[in-house]
Amino acid sequence: MNRCAIQHIVDSSYCFPVSSNEIVLRLRTEKNDIVRAQVIYESKYVIGESQKCADMKKTYTGELFDFYEVKLTLEDTRLAYVFYINDGEKNYYFSEDGVTENYDFTLGYYNFFQYPYINDADIIECVPWMKEAVFYQIFVDRFNIGDEEKDKSYITCKWGDIPTPKTFAGGDLKGITKKLDYIKDLGCNAIYLTPVFESISNHKYDISDYYNVDPQFGSNEDLKELVKMAHSKGIRIVLDAVFNHCSDRLMQFQDVLQNGKASKYFDWFVIKGDKVRSERDNYETFAACDYMPKLNTSNEDVQEFLLNIGEHYINEYDIDGWRLDVSDEISHYFWRKFRERVKKAKKDAVIIGENWHDANSNLRGDQYDSIMNYAFTKLCLDYLATECKSAEQAAWKLNELLMRNTDPVNTMMLNLLDSHDTHRFFKEVGKNRFKMKAALCLLFMFKGAPCMFYGTEILTDGGYDPDCRRCMDWEKAKPDGGYKDIYDLIKKLAFLRKEMKLADGDLKIYGESETLILVNTTESRVIKLMINNTPDKQIVDNVEVKPYSFNISLNGGIIVHE
Amino acid sequence: MNRCAIQHIVDSSYCFPVSSNEIVLRLRTEKNDIVRAQVIYESKYVIGESQKCADMKKTYTGELFDFYEVKLTLEDTRLAYVFYINDGEKNYYFSEDGVTENYDFTLGYYNFFQYPYINDADIIECVPWMKEAVFYQIFVDRFNIGDEEKDKSYITCKWGDIPTPKTFAGGDLKGITKKLDYIKDLGCNAIYLTPVFESISNHKYDISDYYNVDPQFGSNEDLKELVKMAHSKGIRIVLDAVFNHCSDRLMQFQDVLQNGKASKYFDWFVIKGDKVRSERDNYETFAACDYMPKLNTSNEDVQEFLLNIGEHYINEYDIDGWRLDVSDEISHYFWRKFRERVKKAKKDAVIIGENWHDANSNLRGDQYDSIMNYAFTKLCLDYLATECKSAEQAAWKLNELLMRNTDPVNTMMLNLLDSHDTHRFFKEVGKNRFKMKAALCLLFMFKGAPCMFYGTEILTDGGYDPDCRRCMDWEKAKPDGGYKDIYDLIKKLAFLRKEMKLADGDLKIYGESETLILVNTTESRVIKLMINNTPDKQIVDNVEVKPYSFNISLNGGIIVHE
Repeated sequence: MNRCAIQHIVDSSYCFPVSSNEIVLRLRTEKNDIVRAQVIYESKYVIGESQKCADMKKTYTGELFDFYEVKLTLEDTRLAYVFYINDGEKNYYFSEDGVTENYDFTLGYYNFFQYPYINDADIIECVPWMKEAVFYQIFVDRFNIGDEEKDKSYITCKWGDIPTPKTFAGGDLKGITKKLDYIKDLGCNAIYLTPVFESISNHKYDISDYYNVDPQFGSNEDLKELVKMAHSKGIRIVLDAVFNHCSDRLMQFQDVLQNGKASKYFDWFVIKGDKVRSERDNYETFAACDYMPKLNTSNEDVQEFLLNIGEHYINEYDIDGWRLDVSDEISHYFWRKFRERVKKAKKDAVIIGENWHDANSNLRGDQYDSIMNYAFTKLCLDYLATECKSAEQAAWKLNELLMRNTDPVNTMMLNLLDSHDTHRFFKEVGKNRFKMKAALCLLFMFKGAPCMFYGTEILTDGGYDPDCRRCMDWEKAKPDGGYKDIYDLIKKLAFLRKEMKLADGDLKIYGESETLILVNTTESRVIKLMINNTPDKQIVDNVEVKPYSFNISLNGGIIVHE
Repeated sequence: MNRCAIQHIVDSSYCFPVSSNEIVLRLRTEKNDIVRAQVIYESKYVIGESQKCADMKKTYTGELFDFYEVKLTLEDTRLAYVFYINDGEKNYYFSEDGVTENYDFTLGYYNFFQYPYINDADIIECVPWMKEAVFYQIFVDRFNIGDEEKDKSYITCKWGDIPTPKTFAGGDLKGITKKLDYIKDLGCNAIYLTPVFESISNHKYDISDYYNVDPQFGSNEDLKELVKMAHSKGIRIVLDAVFNHCSDRLMQFQDVLQNGKASKYFDWFVIKGDKVRSERDNYETFAACDYMPKLNTSNEDVQEFLLNIGEHYINEYDIDGWRLDVSDEISHYFWRKFRERVKKAKKDAVIIGENWHDANSNLRGDQYDSIMNYAFTKLCLDYLATECKSAEQAAWKLNELLMRNTDPVNTMMLNLLDSHDTHRFFKEVGKNRFKMKAALCLLFMFKGAPCMFYGTEILTDGGYDPDCRRCMDWEKAKPDGGYKDIYDLIKKLAFLRKEMKLADGDLKIYGESETLILVNTTESRVIKLMINNTPDKQIVDNVEVKPYSFNISLNGGIIVHE
């Protein structure tokens, strides 16, 4: 047995309560290295005298590791436990003291694993609507012009022109409100909007006034109307919280530019020296953009300023959550306060960080609910675009991603194929329609909430920013626009997610015969996705899977295929 | 190379900032499995184009693993990094994508490791005085009677009688105040008191009034006087926060007993049904003690009640911190609030949890500063009492304990050989004076603050509670009491800790020739402890270490030996 592979971490994604008397335990071993894993457990005040035992099930397999899992239902939640492992030859105990051949439970109070008590306040709860959420991400300037009366002099292109970094195309909030039925019809029930507050750029990630909608996009009333109309159609609205940095036009930064250290806002930013140099090179910024000064979120006034914004749009506009721009560069300390205030304002508001990397330290129940799952994006690219990962390797990676976090967090992940910050996925797969559809199936069948960038449904093409932010082509979006197959697929997937309660199923992911397989099981039904991304036919369970094809079956009967 | 052994966890004890531009990175490998570890790093906005490289040093070795470490000083703290490992045959990269033979830095934004930005609010700061702290733990009823005028009718034994669970011996706060010089003279500069608030028991872990000192122990004024006098002598006072449970005599529980669900305090406790049954078996308690009902710390009123207590004794009594009883059974959520309030009241107040097990999830900078290090206690028992661990195995375990948490947390650990909740260590080592002294050396030389249970200095004997809580024998504590060797050793060790700034040194721990060796190094000096706990002489670095002996050397010259 490879002892170095054995892992369990208390009070982590290896050990987490899911209700006031249920807890999930996971154990990692080297792949195919053991024949049985069990957990010996009891109340910590009793385990010295008597022990219970439960079998663990091999639930996930990664590149190097197997992960065993068990859910325990406890009478006394003051849980002590030790793993009991058989490698085919011998039995081993695994406790805080490591892997040993013997274990003295009467001295266990020194070194058993423990989850000392399930406090309700520490249980990570899934925001209920996220279990059925299907997101549509909109880059506002490029989606739809709804206000035909407005002053359009700021618009710099014809709708449909390939955008440059400085293009203003004219999309606005009214344009979105007018398309709510369209979005709903596609199967989406949540919209994530890139920033809408006052800003001179087309993307508006450099905000100069957090309390007003940018006039290009409409009025504050337009935002209220959008949220209200969306809610009336069962659609949630998530806004973009750009708190890491602001525009250099923000009043507070302007004050600092003028008054230097004498400004009461001087400490709102991170400035070396007594004033901003004319070279504008002595303060911290987003990336290297001097027009986006970094906000000093260690400053209590800045915290209060941002927390108020977080509450304001919930209290006054009734939005349903925040996506947090560059959230990984802001302190845990701040996000803890943010969560406290936001959840108090609206218990089921969702908080989604923009962390491209493993964000477990933000996802332990005290900060965000989830993140934009770019690691999932990368896996889809590796499997379907560059094909540097086989079906089996893709399955391993998907399992590894699930093992980064607890189940409730995985259920709230915002999974995406692309966004305003990447190439369009359709471009990445060489405009291959099969691959795009296979990716959509994977997006909906994986654990978490799918999020589609506007225009995915018409296979919008485009490279990196600004090319991925092309104007929505409403001609293509017409019933006879040539994308009925894509629309139909998305609608079916959205239907499955909601009506078949995919989020409540157990998900098993594996590769077999070059085929990627996801099986979602509840007591009443089995839904299975098979993707063959090879030029060869494959035989899985005596069934032929054609070259470059996928299918989804419900209780054995194929309901979607290509 | 054993890939399963390779481990790094972002934003954890494997990766933590220690100042606004310094970060420590650790990498785990199988023991003796690789020949070189390096880290390739840069600002995350730049690493696609250019990279820096730093060598890592093998700093800690456990039973199965080596731990490599490096401290990086950063200009731009938006850190991206990938490990670069050579196993003697090949080079490997290790990123979020696992161990690979190639790595494409231009796509690194998907899978490099990152610490996205050092926010000051997230840096774990060491409470400065903890670097020099030497604690003396006092079980108040058994230490010293200082108030000769008081009503002594509650006292049930002669001073010095072997205690029973119900013994009242008469120790009080005035008795401690009178012995402050004694404690200081021993080399201690901090006192941790078991509970002092109103309670009918001798241990007072069942508190009936959190706002008053128990009359047996004196008055609130006596507590103020104790803190004041202690401070005047450079001694800090840490009190015991018993927040998990209270006495059934607490007014709020009495109200619930009387009024059941109609009581406004009903939700302060965890009760099944509408009232407390006469069998007193339908509410949660500490362990199985029905006279200690568990407080429902998920209730906001309870939180506020306890948080106010936390602040009150800092604001009104000027205490220096709290030891948290049964802290592991209380929510993270509560301790976060507690830290916020306590640190606001007194920035350098210390917060020490009672978690007997790995408590990393409480020690990430948002909850406690440290814990009572019972895992260290267990190691001392394993090495010196039961001898189930050799010197080498002891060294491995000590290193493993250090790898559980960040450096600042390790520096604040409350290390102990015994307490009111264990056998006396002197009993555990069969009253072997050498072993006791060796343990004291280890206690002071290990990373963290040593804490000695009262009477350690006179080798107080005793089994488990109540036997470990015997009355302090002041005859033995006299200069001619027969324990000069112990006093001298403790004084020397305390002197070393403070004057030689042990807490600032790099600590290297290893076993060699059956000898346990701890080397503490700063730029200006090397302090080395060697313990030979075998009946044979050992040769280390050509120097003979006698059977059952230890020595401490300063820059090669022996300054303490036995």
